[in-house]
Amino acid sequence: MKAVRLHAYGQPPVVEEVAEPAITGPHDVIVRIGGAGLCRTDLHIIEGQFRDKSGITLPYILGHENAGRVQAVGSAVSNVVVGDTVIVHPQISCGFCRACRAGDDMHCSHAAFPGMDTDGGMAEFLKTSARSVIKLDASMDPADIAALADAGITAYHAVKKAAPHLYPGARAVVIGAGGLGHIGIQCLKALTPAEIIVVDRSRAALDLCRKWGADYTVLAEGSQVATVREITGGRGAEVVLDFVGEGNSLVDGVGMLKRAGSYYLVGYGGQLVVPTIDIIASEISFVGNLVGTYNDLVELMTLTSQGKVTLYTRRYPLEAANEAIHDLESGQLRGRGILVP
Amino acid sequence: MKAVRLHAYGQPPVVEEVAEPAITGPHDVIVRIGGAGLCRTDLHIIEGQFRDKSGITLPYILGHENAGRVQAVGSAVSNVVVGDTVIVHPQISCGFCRACRAGDDMHCSHAAFPGMDTDGGMAEFLKTSARSVIKLDASMDPADIAALADAGITAYHAVKKAAPHLYPGARAVVIGAGGLGHIGIQCLKALTPAEIIVVDRSRAALDLCRKWGADYTVLAEGSQVATVREITGGRGAEVVLDFVGEGNSLVDGVGMLKRAGSYYLVGYGGQLVVPTIDIIASEISFVGNLVGTYNDLVELMTLTSQGKVTLYTRRYPLEAANEAIHDLESGQLRGRGILVP
Amino acid sequence: MKAVRLHAYGQPPVVEEVAEPAITGPHDVIVRIGGAGLCRTDLHIIEGQFRDKSGITLPYILGHENAGRVQAVGSAVSNVVVGDTVIVHPQISCGFCRACRAGDDMHCSHAAFPGMDTDGGMAEFLKTSARSVIKLDASMDPADIAALADAGITAYHAVKKAAPHLYPGARAVVIGAGGLGHIGIQCLKALTPAEIIVVDRSRAALDLCRKWGADYTVLAEGSQVATVREITGGRGAEVVLDFVGEGNSLVDGVGMLKRAGSYYLVGYGGQLVVPTIDIIASEISFVGNLVGTYNDLVELMTLTSQGKVTLYTRRYPLEAANEAIHDLESGQLRGRGILVP
Amino acid sequence: MKAVRLHAYGQPPVVEEVAEPAITGPHDVIVRIGGAGLCRTDLHIIEGQFRDKSGITLPYILGHENAGRVQAVGSAVSNVVVGDTVIVHPQISCGFCRACRAGDDMHCSHAAFPGMDTDGGMAEFLKTSARSVIKLDASMDPADIAALADAGITAYHAVKKAAPHLYPGARAVVIGAGGLGHIGIQCLKALTPAEIIVVDRSRAALDLCRKWGADYTVLAEGSQVATVREITGGRGAEVVLDFVGEGNSLVDGVGMLKRAGSYYLVGYGGQLVVPTIDIIASEISFVGNLVGTYNDLVELMTLTSQGKVTLYTRRYPLEAANEAIHDLESGQLRGRGILVP
Repeated sequence: MKAVRLHAYGQPPVVEEVAEPAITGPHDVIVRIGGAGLCRTDLHIIEGQFRDKSGITLPYILGHENAGRVQAVGSAVSNVVVGDTVIVHPQISCGFCRACRAGDDMHCSHAAFPGMDTDGGMAEFLKTSARSVIKLDASMDPADIAALADAGITAYHAVKKAAPHLYPGARAVVIGAGGLGHIGIQCLKALTPAEIIVVDRSRAALDLCRKWGADYTVLAEGSQVATVREITGGRGAEVVLDFVGEGNSLVDGVGMLKRAGSYYLVGYGGQLVVPTIDIIASEISFVGNLVGTYNDLVELMTLTSQGKVTLYTRRYPLEAANEAIHDLESGQLRGRGILVP
Repeated sequence: MKAVRLHAYGQPPVVEEVAEPAITGPHDVIVRIGGAGLCRTDLHIIEGQFRDKSGITLPYILGHENAGRVQAVGSAVSNVVVGDTVIVHPQISCGFCRACRAGDDMHCSHAAFPGMDTDGGMAEFLKTSARSVIKLDASMDPADIAALADAGITAYHAVKKAAPHLYPGARAVVIGAGGLGHIGIQCLKALTPAEIIVVDRSRAALDLCRKWGADYTVLAEGSQVATVREITGGRGAEVVLDFVGEGNSLVDGVGMLKRAGSYYLVGYGGQLVVPTIDIIASEISFVGNLVGTYNDLVELMTLTSQGKVTLYTRRYPLEAANEAIHDLESGQLRGRGILVP
Repeated sequence: MKAVRLHAYGQPPVVEEVAEPAITGPHDVIVRIGGAGLCRTDLHIIEGQFRDKSGITLPYILGHENAGRVQAVGSAVSNVVVGDTVIVHPQISCGFCRACRAGDDMHCSHAAFPGMDTDGGMAEFLKTSARSVIKLDASMDPADIAALADAGITAYHAVKKAAPHLYPGARAVVIGAGGLGHIGIQCLKALTPAEIIVVDRSRAALDLCRKWGADYTVLAEGSQVATVREITGGRGAEVVLDFVGEGNSLVDGVGMLKRAGSYYLVGYGGQLVVPTIDIIASEISFVGNLVGTYNDLVELMTLTSQGKVTLYTRRYPLEAANEAIHDLESGQLRGRGILVP
Repeated sequence: MKAVRLHAYGQPPVVEEVAEPAITGPHDVIVRIGGAGLCRTDLHIIEGQFRDKSGITLPYILGHENAGRVQAVGSAVSNVVVGDTVIVHPQISCGFCRACRAGDDMHCSHAAFPGMDTDGGMAEFLKTSARSVIKLDASMDPADIAALADAGITAYHAVKKAAPHLYPGARAVVIGAGGLGHIGIQCLKALTPAEIIVVDRSRAALDLCRKWGADYTVLAEGSQVATVREITGGRGAEVVLDFVGEGNSLVDGVGMLKRAGSYYLVGYGGQLVVPTIDIIASEISFVGNLVGTYNDLVELMTLTSQGKVTLYTRRYPLEAANEAIHDLESGQLRGRGILVP
């Protein structure tokens, strides 16, 4: 089959022929990929940022944002059958450890993460596990929703953690109106009564946010912190959701936060640097967010089927993976890039 | 009356005669101080760290950790009468704003903080408010429990926030076995079934921790992170309570934290510096802690009266304030220093 | 002034002249009533159901659902000034007890409840406390929003307690599409992503629910339990909100509840009768709901000003109080009855 | 092998020879029983109370409270090996449904409950699943801890749900000082700072409670409600844990509950009957409790290994099952009866 494989850090991946995966364990599921999302994390993987964390030996297939149709199942699989349309939770969890049993499968002690530490889904077929597939309505086109498998769930998960702080009258600042941000805005709208303030450098991106539910849009042209404080009556926002996590976003975001507020980190790349006296004196919190649970993804698919969350995507043939990567890197890719084998 | 007043940042405060406070409002309460605790925050105030945050004009009276007996009350006060033994919550809250009504009076929109932004309790008398005094059993000696008004409540508040994460089998690391730390250990023991690991540079301080309830003590001599990881089966602790907040404590503490763990900042002075990728990849949180609520202090006084929390103190006459300050600064003060007018 | 006073249980109240209230305490606030809602609880009071609970001596003025403009304030009042438009939280709380300080002022240890245990607002003027008034935009007509002061806040409070159980895909059953129910539906829509199933005996009431946000309406004509179970895939709903609380509603509602579901009691009058084995075997909960907190009412007023909650009312002159009572008793009053002095 | 089988409701079970269970599925685990607890639920099963709920065809083997050593495992089992000492969670859960993935495996959509709806553990061997076994230290005697598998976990689970309400100064009433109650008291002591009030009809049972951590003991001789109200300053307790659930316990328990208090039902047999006005006016809750999760049992085993929870048991040979049943029915069995094959 064709697959997009990384051969060397810092080099573009290669689209090439590889052997198809085969069922070897009782819980294996092989998915014929209908769409594989391209994520900023793929860029970070290619750069080598996860070299030590993932520990994988090159080459391997990229792609952790997958949907398609079930091609084959192992002997003990009973939750899906061949032909089912599925979205693939990005992590393979064990179901036996404390985290899996506590509703926190993202912290599974024996997890694998295809596309990160084992072969992923930028290919014709992906091998995953029965625990990772969610059956969808047959009418759904996998390429339309593949990006929910990672970008979507990550935004949803962070919003769900923030929701208990967002009572009527509270404000949520969304930093970054890109792929994750526009899902985050829709999730905020679906789950909370908060007023939503979106901050971005792009006027065009901000304009699109209005229809997704933004109450205020703030262009990041220098005075964004002051503008947010003004909107919030001088006090700042109860919640900041940072989908950028690098450059000025962190310093800006802390400046937009209210006393006792909570800062949700989703984007990454930069450093969090805050004097402890400022953390203590205003009793603020910083909360990391990592993808989301299987149930989170089920809930997000429910919002999608209810029409409350929609994605903005651009399709590329699998062979054009490096063109998509180039478009994402150079800021020319609006919406989420989806590779279609 | 005699009072300890700060006349200039960077200079020792002066013990001098000042006018006694008088009842001017219907909710005023004047307390004859029986004990005023000396806190590391007083050193930070003297250094000028709070110059901008507090906005007070010098000179003023220090002291935010106070207990004593009610000397006079305003016309609308009904919760205490003259002669009552009281501990004084360090903040004067309004009772009307959203935070006060939401059980979060530390974030009162109209608060005053005697000893920080108005005259404090290192004096013969302190003027506070009916909302800030907690009536105690007459048999209690104010000098024995004054330090609970700030050091105690701060440790209690942080532990109470951490408690939901501390199931049987979970571990809490306490960094710093000093004034706050030893209260924190006792509160952990009273509120949670967690195993407690205490880290400190002083062997003598660690030895005392055993009787307060520490399950493990780790000398901070270089290999403390490795030792804590070993105690926790290589995974780190669910909770880190950092009562130091400067120097190596932050880097060490992050290294001791488990995936999905929570880091409670209580001590301050240094900077929190963490790459965002590390916050995201392990989904950890950093939680600021600021004193605690009135109800927190009531609960802590209950633990104290039940014998579950005891304080280790050293008394100085009010006139010896600068001796106490010197002892605290130079590390010669074991336990909490209490000024007794 | 004119007022509606209850002289004897079981007898219609009397509209008569009484002395106007006067400021006597520092926190007193006198409100010129713009609208006083009529509530099913008023019928229960007249019937004598609260005779022992309230302990009040007759005659006294009814009316616990009030809004208007500030007429006079006591010496210590600073949160409102004469002329302000206000809605009146139905309870006068102390601000000093544990419950008030814990964000749970409905359980104030020293509360008064005008219209229940002291003179209420079915009159030209009401005496309440500074702690009970919420300042509104001057453009609001008190008669439009008075019913939020009790009916509204009660529905909101119950929905807010239920919200954490209502993830995308979960269902909430609303029993009773009347005065409280229609606010409950709007609050569910504003706060949660749940699918809403409304059950009522009146086809006309159900039809109105569609525009407020009901996803399903079920006529209570005998097969309502089976219908709800069918809608919920045979499993029942995660949440039942019972705004009736008498007759068949309780038995029906328990039959509509999913394993591990929660049943929120708002309406009252009947008895809850459930075999303990059924409570244990399905691990269900029954949760009482009493009005709501001051902050709840602030939040509900925010939803109202955002256009997310609207009321359906019918106005009567104060003199026509008994006509309104008759209409409510006989089922001829659709929407909430508001007395306008 | 020998097994205790129920042949007819209302008749004593029969100890007889049956075929040993065999591994048939990849996740099967066969446990050589070291101890099988006898539970009041077994009496209810024999009486036929679960006839409709369980739907099982007689005869079948009783016993849902089991511990022992692993005898054989299916092909896909990796969490235990032959010879391991294990306690058996009473339910076999699927690991795939929403409840299992949400940390609530007791509400698994595809559960089996050996001893209730399939063959149980009052036998030489029990067939269960890899998901249900918890590996213990080899030094533990299964007969010493078997009763934790149901009685223990049920008490623990209820206490864990109650714990967030139990701040320092709060009170928990334990109704019933028997098999579950004495574990409940120890769990309250381990997890919360609450004061514990135990109510029972037996002076001897109450005397034993003192050493397990009861702060007050109240003999149920008629004035128990008044006594509890007196102990609680007239206000009642924040939490009532009812391990009886029949006879007067429910009416008594409601009378002992504070405004806004929570009532945890564990025992069953009687009916909960409360006027809805009383539930609303005091805003109380009734919470059902069903066994507990796998993680709950792991946590309880941790408390046991830490010496914080100990069991009081009496052993019988498997052949003496009916003698044990008789002793339990007639009130002659103090502590938990354990059948040892």
